[in-house]
Amino acid sequence: MGTFIGHISPGLAFLSFGILYAFKFSLMVLRGQKMQLVSPARPPGLRACLKRIPAEGVMKILYGTLAVAAEFFYPPGVYKLTLYNRERADYPFIHPNEWQHATMYSYFALSGWVDIISQACLPRRVVLVESIAIALAFYIEALLLYSHMHGKERVENSVHSLLLLACFLVCLILTAEIWRPNDHVLWFAKTCLVMTQGTWLLHAAFILYRPFTGRPWKGDDMVNLMFVTSFFCWHVALNMILLLAIFSLTGLWHSRCSGRDAGPAFQGAKPTFSLLLERVHGAGLPSQYAKLQAEEEETQLLQECDF
Amino acid sequence: MGTFIGHISPGLAFLSFGILYAFKFSLMVLRGQKMQLVSPARPPGLRACLKRIPAEGVMKILYGTLAVAAEFFYPPGVYKLTLYNRERADYPFIHPNEWQHATMYSYFALSGWVDIISQACLPRRVVLVESIAIALAFYIEALLLYSHMHGKERVENSVHSLLLLACFLVCLILTAEIWRPNDHVLWFAKTCLVMTQGTWLLHAAFILYRPFTGRPWKGDDMVNLMFVTSFFCWHVALNMILLLAIFSLTGLWHSRCSGRDAGPAFQGAKPTFSLLLERVHGAGLPSQYAKLQAEEEETQLLQECDF
Amino acid sequence: MGTFIGHISPGLAFLSFGILYAFKFSLMVLRGQKMQLVSPARPPGLRACLKRIPAEGVMKILYGTLAVAAEFFYPPGVYKLTLYNRERADYPFIHPNEWQHATMYSYFALSGWVDIISQACLPRRVVLVESIAIALAFYIEALLLYSHMHGKERVENSVHSLLLLACFLVCLILTAEIWRPNDHVLWFAKTCLVMTQGTWLLHAAFILYRPFTGRPWKGDDMVNLMFVTSFFCWHVALNMILLLAIFSLTGLWHSRCSGRDAGPAFQGAKPTFSLLLERVHGAGLPSQYAKLQAEEEETQLLQECDF
Amino acid sequence: MGTFIGHISPGLAFLSFGILYAFKFSLMVLRGQKMQLVSPARPPGLRACLKRIPAEGVMKILYGTLAVAAEFFYPPGVYKLTLYNRERADYPFIHPNEWQHATMYSYFALSGWVDIISQACLPRRVVLVESIAIALAFYIEALLLYSHMHGKERVENSVHSLLLLACFLVCLILTAEIWRPNDHVLWFAKTCLVMTQGTWLLHAAFILYRPFTGRPWKGDDMVNLMFVTSFFCWHVALNMILLLAIFSLTGLWHSRCSGRDAGPAFQGAKPTFSLLLERVHGAGLPSQYAKLQAEEEETQLLQECDF
Repeated sequence: MGTFIGHISPGLAFLSFGILYAFKFSLMVLRGQKMQLVSPARPPGLRACLKRIPAEGVMKILYGTLAVAAEFFYPPGVYKLTLYNRERADYPFIHPNEWQHATMYSYFALSGWVDIISQACLPRRVVLVESIAIALAFYIEALLLYSHMHGKERVENSVHSLLLLACFLVCLILTAEIWRPNDHVLWFAKTCLVMTQGTWLLHAAFILYRPFTGRPWKGDDMVNLMFVTSFFCWHVALNMILLLAIFSLTGLWHSRCSGRDAGPAFQGAKPTFSLLLERVHGAGLPSQYAKLQAEEEETQLLQECDF
Repeated sequence: MGTFIGHISPGLAFLSFGILYAFKFSLMVLRGQKMQLVSPARPPGLRACLKRIPAEGVMKILYGTLAVAAEFFYPPGVYKLTLYNRERADYPFIHPNEWQHATMYSYFALSGWVDIISQACLPRRVVLVESIAIALAFYIEALLLYSHMHGKERVENSVHSLLLLACFLVCLILTAEIWRPNDHVLWFAKTCLVMTQGTWLLHAAFILYRPFTGRPWKGDDMVNLMFVTSFFCWHVALNMILLLAIFSLTGLWHSRCSGRDAGPAFQGAKPTFSLLLERVHGAGLPSQYAKLQAEEEETQLLQECDF
Repeated sequence: MGTFIGHISPGLAFLSFGILYAFKFSLMVLRGQKMQLVSPARPPGLRACLKRIPAEGVMKILYGTLAVAAEFFYPPGVYKLTLYNRERADYPFIHPNEWQHATMYSYFALSGWVDIISQACLPRRVVLVESIAIALAFYIEALLLYSHMHGKERVENSVHSLLLLACFLVCLILTAEIWRPNDHVLWFAKTCLVMTQGTWLLHAAFILYRPFTGRPWKGDDMVNLMFVTSFFCWHVALNMILLLAIFSLTGLWHSRCSGRDAGPAFQGAKPTFSLLLERVHGAGLPSQYAKLQAEEEETQLLQECDF
Repeated sequence: MGTFIGHISPGLAFLSFGILYAFKFSLMVLRGQKMQLVSPARPPGLRACLKRIPAEGVMKILYGTLAVAAEFFYPPGVYKLTLYNRERADYPFIHPNEWQHATMYSYFALSGWVDIISQACLPRRVVLVESIAIALAFYIEALLLYSHMHGKERVENSVHSLLLLACFLVCLILTAEIWRPNDHVLWFAKTCLVMTQGTWLLHAAFILYRPFTGRPWKGDDMVNLMFVTSFFCWHVALNMILLLAIFSLTGLWHSRCSGRDAGPAFQGAKPTFSLLLERVHGAGLPSQYAKLQAEEEETQLLQECDF
């Protein structure tokens, strides 16, 4: 839907995923967890299976299916689920935007189904297939965004090409994650870019359909195009700050809960914080460094925990 | 041949290769086989040599040579094997499309010859040279597709640029395979993309030469261009499902044949399936993971095989 | 500021950073130092913290903040810190160049703050976050330079696209450094490219605003565009020579200071020089080479130090 | 020099380098040699130094210097070593092509000087710096070729963009070689591409300045552009065959010389050939394979050498 609500809703969806990722990966870093590529065998049975259904997968399916339905049947009374116009003699294709959007959303819903099947139904989780499914969803999004841009106004193109940039970087990161599933830098870069896609779509909805001045942005004005890029850069900074805030919050919460309840919160937070820093480092580095530094780190941590 | 049959025939060729790859790599994954980079010494002699001739190589040569012949001598009576028109004073080049197609097909035939020489004739197989030959064939295809696109209608360009995208991704994967010949993700990505090239060429033949409405697609209509991209995205999904189906079929067949005939098929399939999942994982990961998980896996597999 | 001084000042800033890097990395190579990814615990307290403040970080903040201020308030009396013109009915955006430049400079200043917080305030240094901050600053610079170029004259575009090329290569190198922080080739490539950006901005200021002939370069003249590229190539060579000179100077100074004061300078320099060569090699190579060559190197060095 | 001879001479230079590389790398592969990254200490003294001067370096300097001289002073009597026209009031730049070509050739000559200094004069060879110098020369060539193409006819552009493609791939390979100096695939890919650049420049000279029909190719004719690409593809195949021939010749010569003179040439060649195949494989693979296969290879080789 090339409408205000058609940009707001995917924006909120991406933003909520970004924030979910931010909490999830922060916790995984703080707890020193890794993606388990070959998970242990799981209890069989329907009930155990239902318990294991991941929130992320359900969200993807819910958002995706609702969005596809909205494309074709929203506002109520509309029915756009036709590929071509039967009334005209040459059967021209109709609703190209709706079908492109529906294709995009379906791939995200598909990725949700793969998540649920892999994490809940199969005897073992197959992280690899989940990674491929979500990477594919973003690749398809990038391809459709690219073909989406032909023949539109320059401001709209500019807005969409910046979205495409963020989307394409997510694709690259997700591809790298297939082979390096436990790299912390990739985790947080992905999170930040997904959040940026979300906030940028929200902003784009206002730029394209509800400009604050009440008048649409003039597309042929160089000044406007330059400001679109500037705004995008501010979004990146904003989302990095948001990510940092979520990470710090999770860090504080984690330090409270993880059994260091003896001292007051502030004192307890300090060694946790440096532990945290090390864990941030942990996975971005080749293994040889990890080995070399393992010994001296131990000594330092012991010293530090003493005061 | 810029004709209906000229798009159908390479489409079928790519599709048949894709399906062949799907079965081949599924079996290799299920059996835990690897590309043997330095194969054992083989018995010499013409008969042993003839026995070792690979079906893939013969198919490449057959398809390639037939296609080259068809370019120049099809339909019967036609003779296009001339580079320039001798009758005109300035000797202009003629049949540019035919020569480009013939160049493409020749490289695939060449790759077939390299396969046969390497796998059957030489004292040892040289996987590296085979990989380079097939990668080169796809690079040449990409280069010629790119130069093919100038000065054509927009719908035709759109169709060909999506084909070029799939072809270029195959190039990248084949280049990566030169250094990582046993990466399962690369195997299946390649397979899926080759199948997509095949089905897309089949679809392209209908779009360009036999539109279902009976009238050619209008090239200047944005709606048509947007639907071309949507259709391509559906092809990707379709081929992934086809690939999954072939993999599952092979898995079932393999579990029947591999000596677990004691119980009924469904029961026997279960542990095989989880074994299978692990093998899917096997090669996409750096070696350190493999080592760390080797021990716990063993325990789990023992537990699992008990019930 | 699209003015003479607006190109000279960032040029000088980049050049000074490049020269600082040249000295810093030369010394690190000569001393065989590495980026310590997990630094030892540091003494707490405000005084110790202030002592650790890095010159680089202060320079980034100073340059960045001054440049942002200059964009909005220079020359004195000017006030450009407004996003849109309140006087006109449609509230058009104003000062697009100033806001883009300010965004760029802010990211560099931000990177400076991250440096200071990481190196001085935190209980341990977090090299990873510093690397990400500076990489991000260059990515934002590249993005804004790219959007900067629309709708300008061809000579200006040509000059800026070469700057963009250097900037983009720095981005790639900084991204690679996140995972390979101790690669000597990356260190010096980065240094040379930052220096090139600096000298090229200085030259660009003269080309665009103070041409030596007194007349502006004609943008539609192919000859001018070709010379712009030639000049850029000369800058690369020039900066490589400058880098080599700084490295040699540092090498001489280091060989004097490092306790080999027994013989005259020239004699002492010789074995140091070959040590130096090895250290240049040291980090560009995979670890297996290092191990294989460790033994024979020792023997050779002993032999060499004897004469 | 945008002339016939100006394309023939660099073509011959590239071709001669390609053939030199083909022999050099074939021999290195057959002898199982590696680039010694830290070479042993060498005897000092002017005479030993002069003995070590490499032919490749001398060729680069000779070709480069002669080409620069030819740009400015050929044909005799011409003097083009002026940057701008002093006679006109606005001092316009002149001879843009000459200065661009001279810049290109100077970088190759520079790379030659670096080779000689590194291999002959320094106490130890610094392979890393040599690799960087030659990579830089090709990067500069690519950049200048790119800027060279603006505002020319389509046929000329097409020819040059294919040259640029080959040049850019050489850049990528040389960059990869900085970190993987002993990868056999990279060696031969580089060799083949340099040879292709050479033969393509020779062909380009005829296309652009001495067409066989006696009339210049029409630039606006799509047919011509399509044939340019086809011809390039044939050059690639041609040069791969040439490379294979050189490799086989070197293999035969090597098998004669390497002490297996007992039997007749054909018999002796067989085990050498399979040894050769293994060495072709040797360096393209990650080290773990090498280790795994080391044992079985030994057994096989013993068996093979017996018959």
